[in-house]
Amino acid sequence: MPTSLDILLRRLHIVMVGTTHPGNIGSAARAMKTMNVSQLVLVEPLKFPSAEATALASGASDILQNAQVCDSLEAGLKDCRLVFGCSARPRSVAWPTLSPEACIEKALESGENCAIVFGREHSGLSNAELDRCHYLVQIPSNPDYASLNIASAVQILCYEARRQASLLTATPSIAIKNEIPLASAEELARLYEHLEQTLIDINFLDPEKPKRLMRKLQRFLNKAQPNQSEVNILRGILTAAQVQGKKS
Amino acid sequence: MPTSLDILLRRLHIVMVGTTHPGNIGSAARAMKTMNVSQLVLVEPLKFPSAEATALASGASDILQNAQVCDSLEAGLKDCRLVFGCSARPRSVAWPTLSPEACIEKALESGENCAIVFGREHSGLSNAELDRCHYLVQIPSNPDYASLNIASAVQILCYEARRQASLLTATPSIAIKNEIPLASAEELARLYEHLEQTLIDINFLDPEKPKRLMRKLQRFLNKAQPNQSEVNILRGILTAAQVQGKKS
Repeated sequence: MPTSLDILLRRLHIVMVGTTHPGNIGSAARAMKTMNVSQLVLVEPLKFPSAEATALASGASDILQNAQVCDSLEAGLKDCRLVFGCSARPRSVAWPTLSPEACIEKALESGENCAIVFGREHSGLSNAELDRCHYLVQIPSNPDYASLNIASAVQILCYEARRQASLLTATPSIAIKNEIPLASAEELARLYEHLEQTLIDINFLDPEKPKRLMRKLQRFLNKAQPNQSEVNILRGILTAAQVQGKKS
Repeated sequence: MPTSLDILLRRLHIVMVGTTHPGNIGSAARAMKTMNVSQLVLVEPLKFPSAEATALASGASDILQNAQVCDSLEAGLKDCRLVFGCSARPRSVAWPTLSPEACIEKALESGENCAIVFGREHSGLSNAELDRCHYLVQIPSNPDYASLNIASAVQILCYEARRQASLLTATPSIAIKNEIPLASAEELARLYEHLEQTLIDINFLDPEKPKRLMRKLQRFLNKAQPNQSEVNILRGILTAAQVQGKKS
């Protein structure tokens, strides 16, 4: 059963134009699959299928098998309504240029099939190909070293797509589970009393003016948000220290 | 002249533990450099330096040349105050788990040197290594195919770091430093040793099998991110409890 996340992400087509190294196609497929992006379109790949692509896809060979191979960008875009061209460098012509976040936001908002087009490893997309794009996307990168590998660029866009699609479908991206319930305010209050008494017992705290230190310790313990099990351990330690204190 | 972006990103240390394939080290260096992240720490790499790493670094060989090579995670973390462990799979023990965005947000907010630790390609990080981490980071990914390449994971975290650091340096605010510096990894290690010894002294800990309880306590204290003043208070308390223990 495809989830709503899958349905959203299936609208996103990764289009690789004139890719020279089959390994990059395989790595891109792997990058896509980790992020639930499944639609791959290859326009005039230099060599495909290829054993190297399959090796680097490493378990994502279904993406390669289902890839659509075309002999022109026009054919590759036929199912898509909105086209984003990925560009490594700023272009002289003033195409509207988007960040990866803005690109994905537009793509998901559109409710249409969208293509993100990646050019050749060395020469990128031609001007004629860029003319097919509604927007350029540029991944912000080191101006002195913008040598982003094409599969890494695919990885970043797919990560961004999955991140935003998860928010939209309200699949919690990460479930932070507290298996053990946090301590209640009352349990904490008793812990602090116990701590204060123990510190007096072991002659650490001046019972005349305990306030400042106790406030620091409370603030410290609060930062850790103790759960019930942790409160029990801490109180066990306090009791052990008190027993020693009384023996002496 | 380093830009303010460079200065922020120089606080971020990418720590790779027990990396098996030198090619992954090279690809990670390339991924880092595209995003202006420069500090690489290699803990017990299987093979380094290596021609394969240099080949895949593709122009980012300065990152490799400046990489710090260590024989323990502890040594690798000595300059860092806040440690994030990257985990591919959910862990049974309830570590606080962050998304990449939340991780980078915390790292940049801290104003401290931070480490993001990446485990071995096949087995990730050991529990003892995870115990050194204040937080886990998990890149949300396809539950049926979470086979994210380690260099791709580095790419995503560095992309996220550069993205957020650019926003911060564009707006002149932020990078508020903690008034009292967080305890260093070394100071924490000494605190844990002192705690363990004290718990033995007050007959709370069975010296034959201290591991499980100590791990829980470490995780608890890590959640609070102790600063230097708090570590000093805690060690003062431990010493007072030890003195009582010896009297008895």
